[in-house]
Amino acid sequence: MSDQMNTQVKLVQRPVGEPAPECFQVEQAPVTAPADGEVLYKVLYISLDPAMRGWMNEGKSYIPPVGLGEVMRAGGVGRVIQSAHPDFKEGDYVSGHPGAQEYAVEKGGELIAIDPDVAPLQRYLGVLGMPGITAYFGLLDVGQPKAGETVLISGAAGAVGSTVGQIAKLKGCRVVGIAGGAEKCDFLRELGFDAVIDYKSENIFRSLKQACPDGVDVFFDNVGGPALEAALARLRFRGRVVLCGAISQYNATERPTGPSNYMSLLVNRARMEGFVVFDYKDRYAEAVREMAGWIEQGKLQAREHVVEGLPQFHSHLMMLFHGENFGKLVLKVADDA
Amino acid sequence: MSDQMNTQVKLVQRPVGEPAPECFQVEQAPVTAPADGEVLYKVLYISLDPAMRGWMNEGKSYIPPVGLGEVMRAGGVGRVIQSAHPDFKEGDYVSGHPGAQEYAVEKGGELIAIDPDVAPLQRYLGVLGMPGITAYFGLLDVGQPKAGETVLISGAAGAVGSTVGQIAKLKGCRVVGIAGGAEKCDFLRELGFDAVIDYKSENIFRSLKQACPDGVDVFFDNVGGPALEAALARLRFRGRVVLCGAISQYNATERPTGPSNYMSLLVNRARMEGFVVFDYKDRYAEAVREMAGWIEQGKLQAREHVVEGLPQFHSHLMMLFHGENFGKLVLKVADDA
Repeated sequence: MSDQMNTQVKLVQRPVGEPAPECFQVEQAPVTAPADGEVLYKVLYISLDPAMRGWMNEGKSYIPPVGLGEVMRAGGVGRVIQSAHPDFKEGDYVSGHPGAQEYAVEKGGELIAIDPDVAPLQRYLGVLGMPGITAYFGLLDVGQPKAGETVLISGAAGAVGSTVGQIAKLKGCRVVGIAGGAEKCDFLRELGFDAVIDYKSENIFRSLKQACPDGVDVFFDNVGGPALEAALARLRFRGRVVLCGAISQYNATERPTGPSNYMSLLVNRARMEGFVVFDYKDRYAEAVREMAGWIEQGKLQAREHVVEGLPQFHSHLMMLFHGENFGKLVLKVADDA
Repeated sequence: MSDQMNTQVKLVQRPVGEPAPECFQVEQAPVTAPADGEVLYKVLYISLDPAMRGWMNEGKSYIPPVGLGEVMRAGGVGRVIQSAHPDFKEGDYVSGHPGAQEYAVEKGGELIAIDPDVAPLQRYLGVLGMPGITAYFGLLDVGQPKAGETVLISGAAGAVGSTVGQIAKLKGCRVVGIAGGAEKCDFLRELGFDAVIDYKSENIFRSLKQACPDGVDVFFDNVGGPALEAALARLRFRGRVVLCGAISQYNATERPTGPSNYMSLLVNRARMEGFVVFDYKDRYAEAVREMAGWIEQGKLQAREHVVEGLPQFHSHLMMLFHGENFGKLVLKVADDA
């Protein structure tokens, strides 16, 4: 492998507002062999996620920022080329955090074995990966929906949101989604959402009043901004706001907007709570097992939006912030050959 | 009693922003006799509370607004003049919701008997009344402080805040208070607060960093605005923000300011939760019993700020919004004669 070159996308500049193309640099480096306990794998797909924007910022957050000059952090899946870890052998498929590059060396203990016969590889970055697991624990553990309650979801057509909605339906809830554009809204109706709001063509406050005449018990927020404000205004007694993300605010260069009506939490004896999926590491397997079962039974649908070309990392990533992806956005890095 | 006249303060106009004197009108009405099950009592003290501002607004909240032309709602204490309820007799002292007037008729079932030998009457509007009970359940039930944790309180010199701080000390916490002015800050130090921030003379963000170098586990918020932003910025892992009030926002005519850094709740897996003391009605006695015990043992101090003159209701009330009261603000309506 020593002659094999590895294309890498590195973070070379911290973005201010929307990341500019100059924030990233494509470089070549030789592929390195795994040290003891490590595994070298060929990266087949990487995941493009809104959270990546936060990882580019300096300063305290739930994980350290990506360092300048480092390969951009990314989850991904691939095929093992060379293993120095007893749990993996050449040809195995794994899910890990390879970063935005063609070949990755990672500690075997941080990899999860995946089976391409159970689901296509890219699905392990979607409903059977971080987004699905995020949806599962965020809704069930933090949101604690009860049958008959109304669950509202922003960013509902996204990888996390569409899974949240389907799980909420499985749990007997009435489900309302907020998404941008007729095509995404149609998709949500196909998934069984009871009502859908197109924030691009509708007044979100007015439509929410119609869609949730009795209010909202659980709001699963991926977006922030007006969606959060509107949901707080419709919150029911002892409602729960699950803070999963705030994609509307991630590129803000001015102070982001806080919800001016947060005192609705007091009037309604409600709570707003944040969570980070990494805290559920010990229970990932439980979530994947249950969701794989639902997929098999046809109760949980998944959709990925696959783009190609690692060197075009920046323009692919920007699709997330412009609402251009439709389903879980994954970047195909290489054919499985 | 039929000749006796009753001075009443009525709400005659809904305020926009800060209540103007014209919002209230002082009127005379004959004192009425109690119907079956009711009690007529002479009002001795009424409570002046920030929450009153909310009660003046039209629209949905945790209790209905005061109607135009109605006596302004107020908690208070008094002495029974005439009883048509088996639990009370002439001369008994009671706590209830008489409103801003000299004589009140209320259902006996809504009154609580109080004992002027255990504590001075006005204290039943402070630490042994709604503010104390609010502090008790808000801190212990919603905030759930653990020994060794840091508890931060805004509006710390107020009736609720000063009780929260003392209870937190009793539970083994490190307690930091935010208050306005040197005199109030000195008072908090006397009460045993570990650190105090004077928001009138200090930069609240900078001072909070110094006062809570390891962050804040529980923030008990009576104020909102910059205090809430600053606290969110210092929140610790699994921190709790208890929303008790937002006095800085009550008179806002523009959209109030929401906390722009609310996503600190996500990063820190923290929650922000509102509560209303009325939900704890069944447990009031428990709180009063425990706090009366602490007072007796000298572990809980109380301070009231007594003003006089029912017709000057408006100007007394405004003291709250200008930070002019020092301790629980109570209006003495009449001598106990």
